[in-house]
Amino acid sequence: MSNRVVLREIGLRDGMQLVRTDLPTAHKIEWIEEAVFAGVTEIEVTSFVPAKTFPIFADAAHVAAAAIAMPALTASALAVNLRGAKDAFAAGLKKVGYVVSASEAHSLANVRRTTDEAIGEFKRIVDHRAEIGLTDQISLSCGIATAFGCTLQGDVPRHRVHEIAGKLVELGADEIMVADTVGYANPSQVEDILGECIERFPGVSITGHFHDTRGLGLANVAAAVRVGVRGFDGSLGGLGGCPYAPGATGNVNFEDMAFMLRAMGFETGINLDRLMALRRKIGAWLPEERFTGAILRAGLPSTFPIS
Amino acid sequence: MSNRVVLREIGLRDGMQLVRTDLPTAHKIEWIEEAVFAGVTEIEVTSFVPAKTFPIFADAAHVAAAAIAMPALTASALAVNLRGAKDAFAAGLKKVGYVVSASEAHSLANVRRTTDEAIGEFKRIVDHRAEIGLTDQISLSCGIATAFGCTLQGDVPRHRVHEIAGKLVELGADEIMVADTVGYANPSQVEDILGECIERFPGVSITGHFHDTRGLGLANVAAAVRVGVRGFDGSLGGLGGCPYAPGATGNVNFEDMAFMLRAMGFETGINLDRLMALRRKIGAWLPEERFTGAILRAGLPSTFPIS
Repeated sequence: MSNRVVLREIGLRDGMQLVRTDLPTAHKIEWIEEAVFAGVTEIEVTSFVPAKTFPIFADAAHVAAAAIAMPALTASALAVNLRGAKDAFAAGLKKVGYVVSASEAHSLANVRRTTDEAIGEFKRIVDHRAEIGLTDQISLSCGIATAFGCTLQGDVPRHRVHEIAGKLVELGADEIMVADTVGYANPSQVEDILGECIERFPGVSITGHFHDTRGLGLANVAAAVRVGVRGFDGSLGGLGGCPYAPGATGNVNFEDMAFMLRAMGFETGINLDRLMALRRKIGAWLPEERFTGAILRAGLPSTFPIS
Repeated sequence: MSNRVVLREIGLRDGMQLVRTDLPTAHKIEWIEEAVFAGVTEIEVTSFVPAKTFPIFADAAHVAAAAIAMPALTASALAVNLRGAKDAFAAGLKKVGYVVSASEAHSLANVRRTTDEAIGEFKRIVDHRAEIGLTDQISLSCGIATAFGCTLQGDVPRHRVHEIAGKLVELGADEIMVADTVGYANPSQVEDILGECIERFPGVSITGHFHDTRGLGLANVAAAVRVGVRGFDGSLGGLGGCPYAPGATGNVNFEDMAFMLRAMGFETGINLDRLMALRRKIGAWLPEERFTGAILRAGLPSTFPIS
């Protein structure tokens, strides 16, 4: 099994959904450039959503254009429906993400669709990719939100997650991103659910997306990498997360995750000193945000290999 | 392998070393009583050290007397040398802890003894236990500090940890507590080092003591429990930790650890609602301290079994 992990930075998408301060397009592009300079190979750079509802993403096409000009980078964006996916394809992105929710209650509350209806929309995105002849050029990632439980519905049956993943793979998903949207996952559950995904869908990238709401984010990453997961989402400074979970902290902290996996002997390709220089810049750009993370404060162990 | 884990609360010992506010003896005893009421079965209740240097522990014998009166509790105390161990035995404690450092540099800086000299002091403690005829009545725990690396020395060879553990077991240690004193450990290293301890010392309790300095505390606990470790140290609110590590956060947060292990399906015996009531009390008693922890802020998942 490969020793290489792909860490996808999602602060510019998931993080931006919640920030109090607007971030100028030039800073977003600098964020991407500096992350690539630090060795980050995949970034979810923006979200294709209605600009009226999310003015922070009004520059989506502009940010995407800057990102796809960087050869070392896999730039992706989130599309919440076929319309967004069409815009993302038109912007030239070679990777696009979409999300369905394993919890019916969460799906209805979030996008006013049942889970099966949301899967139907993914089929339309896949079909559109084929119609425009880009099936081989564009990679589609489909996330499964609330895969480890839901604040509204409670337990989400494990077989339901694998059933949904199976449908998405059959439709043509190149990556399945399994998300602990509300921070309910624990390491044993992660090993069970993601271990089965790895076994059942051998040709498909399986990515773990964890929230640190209850402090278990990195423990869940360590559990997932143990059963063979080699792709992880995280955001610099832990920006973002679910806006509807009270008191919730957000995504797994990207720099701490990069530190942990490198310390565990995995190849991340990331230079942590450069990454932390970017992290400090982001802190200065967004002075009103609450950031998380231990490694920026404590520093690397003296025994740590720098790059 | 047993599904039962023993979580030792060490805030009254490790936490008290660093607090800015004095904590009255009555509050210490209330802490112990409430923790027992919440289902905590083992508490390191104090430290036997010179009262001149550590006035917060001047009430050690008094606190110990109150703790040993509680039948459901295994009350232990730290002794830094033979003199402290004699005092702890005289106080009636049935479990006493002592610590040696795997790093020579840390050992010399901390107690002005080489590691072997520190092991020699442990032998004197074991011998004294025999001389007073209490070998069967008093359990001795010996910790191995800086077992995963050291800020002063750097790497600590893995074989050195097992060599020290072997000597301690041979001398008569009933428990080996393996400590990541400076927060250098990562989950892979924890599985390696503690997995080998479990294999090599089958009749001995192996306890993990992790610091959350670099955010990996709970990930390390999850890794340790996976390879068969069934005892863990932690402090309520994450109080304590190494005073010499700049910017360091302290011990693994006890309530988050209890939550994680219960969520993973282990039996902790702990009622988290009661535990958090005590955690809030401690916050009120020590208003100047910085506390850590996610579960108090975020609350338990709706799917979580309460007790």
